[in-house]
Amino acid sequence: MNIPDAVQIREVGPRDGFQNEPETIATERKIELIDMLARTGLPRLEVTSFVRPDVIPQLADASEVLGGIDVPSEVAVGVLIPNERGLEMALELRDRLSGDRPAFDEVNVFLSASETHNRKNVRRSVEESLVSLEKVLSHARATGLRCEAVISTSFGCPYEGHVPPERVLAIARRLRDAGAQEIGFGDTTGMANPVQVGDFFKLAQEQLRGSDSGGAPRASSSIPNPGVQLTAHFHNTRGQGLANVLAALQAGVTSFESSFGELGGCPVPAGATGNIATEDLVSMLHEMGVSTGIDLGALLSCSRRVQEVLGRPLGSHTLVAGPIDWR
Amino acid sequence: MNIPDAVQIREVGPRDGFQNEPETIATERKIELIDMLARTGLPRLEVTSFVRPDVIPQLADASEVLGGIDVPSEVAVGVLIPNERGLEMALELRDRLSGDRPAFDEVNVFLSASETHNRKNVRRSVEESLVSLEKVLSHARATGLRCEAVISTSFGCPYEGHVPPERVLAIARRLRDAGAQEIGFGDTTGMANPVQVGDFFKLAQEQLRGSDSGGAPRASSSIPNPGVQLTAHFHNTRGQGLANVLAALQAGVTSFESSFGELGGCPVPAGATGNIATEDLVSMLHEMGVSTGIDLGALLSCSRRVQEVLGRPLGSHTLVAGPIDWR
Repeated sequence: MNIPDAVQIREVGPRDGFQNEPETIATERKIELIDMLARTGLPRLEVTSFVRPDVIPQLADASEVLGGIDVPSEVAVGVLIPNERGLEMALELRDRLSGDRPAFDEVNVFLSASETHNRKNVRRSVEESLVSLEKVLSHARATGLRCEAVISTSFGCPYEGHVPPERVLAIARRLRDAGAQEIGFGDTTGMANPVQVGDFFKLAQEQLRGSDSGGAPRASSSIPNPGVQLTAHFHNTRGQGLANVLAALQAGVTSFESSFGELGGCPVPAGATGNIATEDLVSMLHEMGVSTGIDLGALLSCSRRVQEVLGRPLGSHTLVAGPIDWR
Repeated sequence: MNIPDAVQIREVGPRDGFQNEPETIATERKIELIDMLARTGLPRLEVTSFVRPDVIPQLADASEVLGGIDVPSEVAVGVLIPNERGLEMALELRDRLSGDRPAFDEVNVFLSASETHNRKNVRRSVEESLVSLEKVLSHARATGLRCEAVISTSFGCPYEGHVPPERVLAIARRLRDAGAQEIGFGDTTGMANPVQVGDFFKLAQEQLRGSDSGGAPRASSSIPNPGVQLTAHFHNTRGQGLANVLAALQAGVTSFESSFGELGGCPVPAGATGNIATEDLVSMLHEMGVSTGIDLGALLSCSRRVQEVLGRPLGSHTLVAGPIDWR
């Protein structure tokens, strides 16, 4: 099977998962869990967001979390930035906190590819979001931060249905040209299927990086920022999350986002699963011979701990069944 | 993506699922559910088993179920046969029941590829099971029944770990040569990964059918019964079930087994998922453009009904989230 030897996983649970819990998790527990995750071999953690505390009270302690965590310097700390005000707040905090390492290394911004989903989520048109995020990306890059832009509903919208890949890639080009070094494509409500995923990422690589793995090499000189990283963010809403990962791997994708314990991911409807679980992703990748640098046992300890903290069983398959024991 | 246009799904829930419920389901409810399943477009149903009622009381009503169901003649009814005594009981019943159609059309037999799992499951060595099943297959074929043989722990054993593909394929050859028209390869405790699955089925096709899809055609004249059907039976124990389906499709597999509502599959440990859910499989296949002949809405009605009958929420993703609505 033609797949990469190694991939990079970005853990989004401390932001995406903690944000979606009905009860706000205590700040000390968040810090404990982030510090645990930072010692599993995960190279990147999204730890919080600079959103309005009246809108998302679960993440109102962003400053305290960033001030309290102890993350080794080789692990990149990322924060979600919703808009220009959010970036200002984040940068003020970053200047204020002085330590062995910066409070965070990466920012990520987001919008939806479909008008209806974007309006419901951030009360802006896609164009309004793009204009705002172009400023955020430009400003963030100028301060030396690494920038990712995530495009939600890249594979389908619960309100609009089909989302044309051309539309998603046009948005991706705008974000790349504004300074995003990484574009994440989100399957926000689990509508993607493996055939679609394979086709999409082949097209994305061709259009965004000037590479066409299936045919003759194209001149990449005409493509600005050809080194942009393309990342897949799948949900397991209808059980297809890891099948979509397989299709993305076969299309050459080497960067994935997931959430420990299967936390978060805006489950729609209630009870449905959201993000793919990091431990299920790592288990499959390791079994396939794809390295991640992650210690699956240490990662499962984090999921067991967050299960204790939340006081309810979590749905990750590998957490329930245990890792495969080849004895 | 190079995958088949159509596949065949065999529903195992009424046997595999009902057998694994702690409380025996009332015979009338079983009959109601099988009759519903038989009107979803599913081409094949495994409805019960002729096992000793003191060993598996949940299926002690095999005769009543087979006598009570009303399955259209175009839907194949299958029964699980553990041994020669089970086949005799099944054939006696088949002779006794006279109706518009035979009481059942297919039998399937099973053993494990690993010694320890086979001994724990049926208290026989693999060789003892093979000798017995060769007699069962020969006898069943002589009565005009279609015969499938399922090899459990084909991709790994919870007691022994690695199970060499050569061992599995040697067992498959014995069963094929004894009359099995179909060999099912079971991932009994969810240890398979997509790379392994792809490699395995390419080898299985080459060795069992004389076809090598990846290279030059081989003379099939040297292979007895080259038309043997190869079937994949995956569990979702660690969330990789549909990713393994994708790998099997890419290797040319067109026959799958699954269980509506994600019932059954001997969950180990307790709480772990077993069989892949038929509705999740059908959802993914249809989204990929692979036809199954199954009405997903009608199938989901069956899963909702069994959920009512069992009085507990079931874990199938598509049942919880609903089918994708492209509006």
